[in-house]
Amino acid sequence: MAFDLSTCLARIQPVDDESAQFATMRHAALAKPAGSLGQLEDVGVRLAAITRRVPPPVPQHPTLVVAAGDHGVHAEGVTPWPQAITAIMTGVIAGGRAASTVLAAGYGVDWVVLDVGVAGEVPVNEAPDEDRPNTAGAPAESRLRTARVVEAGTRNLRLEDAMTRDEAVAAIAVGHEAAAQAIDAGCDLLVLGDMGIANTTASAALIAALTGVDAATATGRGTGIDDETLAHKAQVVADAITRLGNRREPLEILAAVGGAEHAALVGVILAGAAHRVPVVLDGVITNAAALVAQALAPASVGYCLAGHRSVEPGATVALDHLDLHPLLDLDLRLGEGTGALLAVPLVQGAARVLGQMASLADLGVD
Amino acid sequence: MAFDLSTCLARIQPVDDESAQFATMRHAALAKPAGSLGQLEDVGVRLAAITRRVPPPVPQHPTLVVAAGDHGVHAEGVTPWPQAITAIMTGVIAGGRAASTVLAAGYGVDWVVLDVGVAGEVPVNEAPDEDRPNTAGAPAESRLRTARVVEAGTRNLRLEDAMTRDEAVAAIAVGHEAAAQAIDAGCDLLVLGDMGIANTTASAALIAALTGVDAATATGRGTGIDDETLAHKAQVVADAITRLGNRREPLEILAAVGGAEHAALVGVILAGAAHRVPVVLDGVITNAAALVAQALAPASVGYCLAGHRSVEPGATVALDHLDLHPLLDLDLRLGEGTGALLAVPLVQGAARVLGQMASLADLGVD
Repeated sequence: MAFDLSTCLARIQPVDDESAQFATMRHAALAKPAGSLGQLEDVGVRLAAITRRVPPPVPQHPTLVVAAGDHGVHAEGVTPWPQAITAIMTGVIAGGRAASTVLAAGYGVDWVVLDVGVAGEVPVNEAPDEDRPNTAGAPAESRLRTARVVEAGTRNLRLEDAMTRDEAVAAIAVGHEAAAQAIDAGCDLLVLGDMGIANTTASAALIAALTGVDAATATGRGTGIDDETLAHKAQVVADAITRLGNRREPLEILAAVGGAEHAALVGVILAGAAHRVPVVLDGVITNAAALVAQALAPASVGYCLAGHRSVEPGATVALDHLDLHPLLDLDLRLGEGTGALLAVPLVQGAARVLGQMASLADLGVD
Repeated sequence: MAFDLSTCLARIQPVDDESAQFATMRHAALAKPAGSLGQLEDVGVRLAAITRRVPPPVPQHPTLVVAAGDHGVHAEGVTPWPQAITAIMTGVIAGGRAASTVLAAGYGVDWVVLDVGVAGEVPVNEAPDEDRPNTAGAPAESRLRTARVVEAGTRNLRLEDAMTRDEAVAAIAVGHEAAAQAIDAGCDLLVLGDMGIANTTASAALIAALTGVDAATATGRGTGIDDETLAHKAQVVADAITRLGNRREPLEILAAVGGAEHAALVGVILAGAAHRVPVVLDGVITNAAALVAQALAPASVGYCLAGHRSVEPGATVALDHLDLHPLLDLDLRLGEGTGALLAVPLVQGAARVLGQMASLADLGVD
C-alpha cells in the first residue's frame, strides 16, 4: 500500500491521560517513598500513557533505526570531515562495528540502517566472526536498506531547497515503512539514530525555522569545529533561514532546509505515534526531526522520550520546545543513536519497577 | 582467616596511569571523532586503569551488595518513617521485590543483602514464582546474610558514639568478606546499596566530619521531610559534630557518627580496590562510605565510579570531595542501590565501545 501522509497523521491520537493517572497511583502504592525514583517514575507513567497499559509492558524488542544521508551544504565548508565519511560510517554502522551498533548488540537492540540519500557506494564493513557483537547473526546486508530519495545527497540548502516536497515525503515514507515493518515483527521500542556529514547544519536550520530562535543560537560545533568555522556555519544557517522566507508549512520547511535522514526519522516518529510504540530520541538531528513531527502532528511528541541531551546547543533549544526532559547528559556529540541506546536500559528499568515491585499493601505497611 | 584492616589497606595500590594512557590512545584511534562519546570515554579509561587491561573487560557478573542497619538517632525524630521499615524493606530487597532488586534482576545483576545491625526480625518477602524476576532462582534466604555487629541498631549518635571502634571494624570485615567472596565467585563489578531508616542523618554527619562543611550544608530531606524536621535534623547533625570534637581519625569518625551499613560498605569498597574490581557508588549513604574509605586508603577512590547524583545535598558535597562525576542525575532519593544499578549498563557500554568498535585504521581513514 502506498504511503499516504494525511492518513498517517490522522491516525495519531494523543497519549492516554487516564492510563497516566492510573500509573501515577500505582507508583504511589509501591514499596518506596512517593516520588523517590524521580525521573524514572515519569518514564514509567509516560510508557503507560503511550501503551494504554498499567503497568506498561517492559520493552523486550527495541529496534534502532539509523537514517543516513548526505548534504549539499557540505560544499560550504561547514565541517572538516570529508563527505565520503557518511558512506563509510553507514556501512560500519550496518555491519555492527560502530559505537552505536556495538552498544545496540550489547543491550539486545536490533538495528536497521536506511540509506535515504548517501552519496556514493556504501561499503559494508562487517565485524569478523570471532568478535561479532551481533548475537542475532543476521548478515549486515540485510540491515542496510538502500532507498535513496535523493541520488547523491540533498542540494545545498544555503542556495536552494535541499529537497522537493515529494522527495521529503518519499523519505518520510521510507522511515515510516521501516518502523511499521519492525513493529509488525514485534518491535516495542523505537530508537532513533542518524548518520550524515554536515547534518548538524541542516538540524540547526530546522530548529531555527521551527522554534524561532536565531541561527547563531541554534548552531553548534557538531563533532568539532573551530570558532571561525562555527561563525561561518551560523552564517550559512542564517542565509538558509533568510532564503526560506515566510514559508511556515512543516513539509516545506523540511524540504527546504532539512536532510533526507531528518525526513526518514520524521516517518519513524509518526509510525511510532500511530502504533502507540514509544520512540527514544538521540541527539540534535533526531530532536530536529521530532520538531518537524510535532509540527505535522502535535500529539506525536507524546510518544517521544528524550534519551539524552547532546552538547549541541540546538538540542537544548529543541528539547525545551518539545517540553522533553532528557534522561542522560553525558557530553555526547556522536549521534548514530548512541545517546538513545544508552537510555534504553533506563526505559526498560522504568517499566520493570512499575510492574514488578511489591506494593506497600503487600507488606502490610500503611 | 580473620580480617585485618591494616593488611587490607596495605594491599590497595593506585589505579594504573599507564593503562589509562593506552586506553585514551585507543579511544582516539576508534571510528568516531575524538572525545565524541564524552563521559562514556572517561568511564572506559577508568575501567582500564582499574583492571590494568586495555581494552578493559566488559563486566559480565556484577553483584549488588546492600548493607542494612538501624540507627539509634531515629529516636530524635529525624524522619517520619518508623524504624520497623528497615527490617521489612531489608527482607523485600533480599526477596527480589524492591525497586533495587527488580532493577538488578532486569540487568542481570546478582545481589546479596548484609544485615549488619537491623533491629528486629527480617521477614523475607519473596516474589511469587510466577513473577519472580530473579532468573538465577536462588532462594532469598541465601541472599540475606545476618551478621549483626550491633544488636538492635547503633546507639544515638547525637548523645554517644554510635558504635565502638571494634564494632565498626567488624562491620567493615563483613562487607569486605562478602565482596571478596563475590569476587572469588566471578564478580567483576561491585554495586553498592543501603537500607536503614534514618541513615541520611548518619551520612550527613560523616560527610560534615570528613569534608569540613557545616551540618546544615550536609543535611537534606532524605526520602522526604518538612522544613521544620529538616531544621531539627540539621541540629542533630550539628550536635553530633560538636560531640565528635577534634577526633579526626577515620575509624573514630565512622564509629562515632556513622552506621553499621556505612562501615560494611567501606569494607566492600576496600575489597574492590584491593582486588582491582570497579565499585559503582549509589547515593549519599554510599558516597559517605566512599569518603571514609578514601580517608583510610586514599587510592581507594580510584576504583569508584559515581553511578548517580542523589538529590540529597550531602551527595554533591561528597562527590565533589571525592572528585567523582556522576553518570546519572535523575532526581533519585531512594537508595537501595537503585541509582548505581541504573548506571551498570552504562559502565558495560563504556567497556564495549572501547573493546569492540572498528578503528579508523581498519577503515582506511586517516
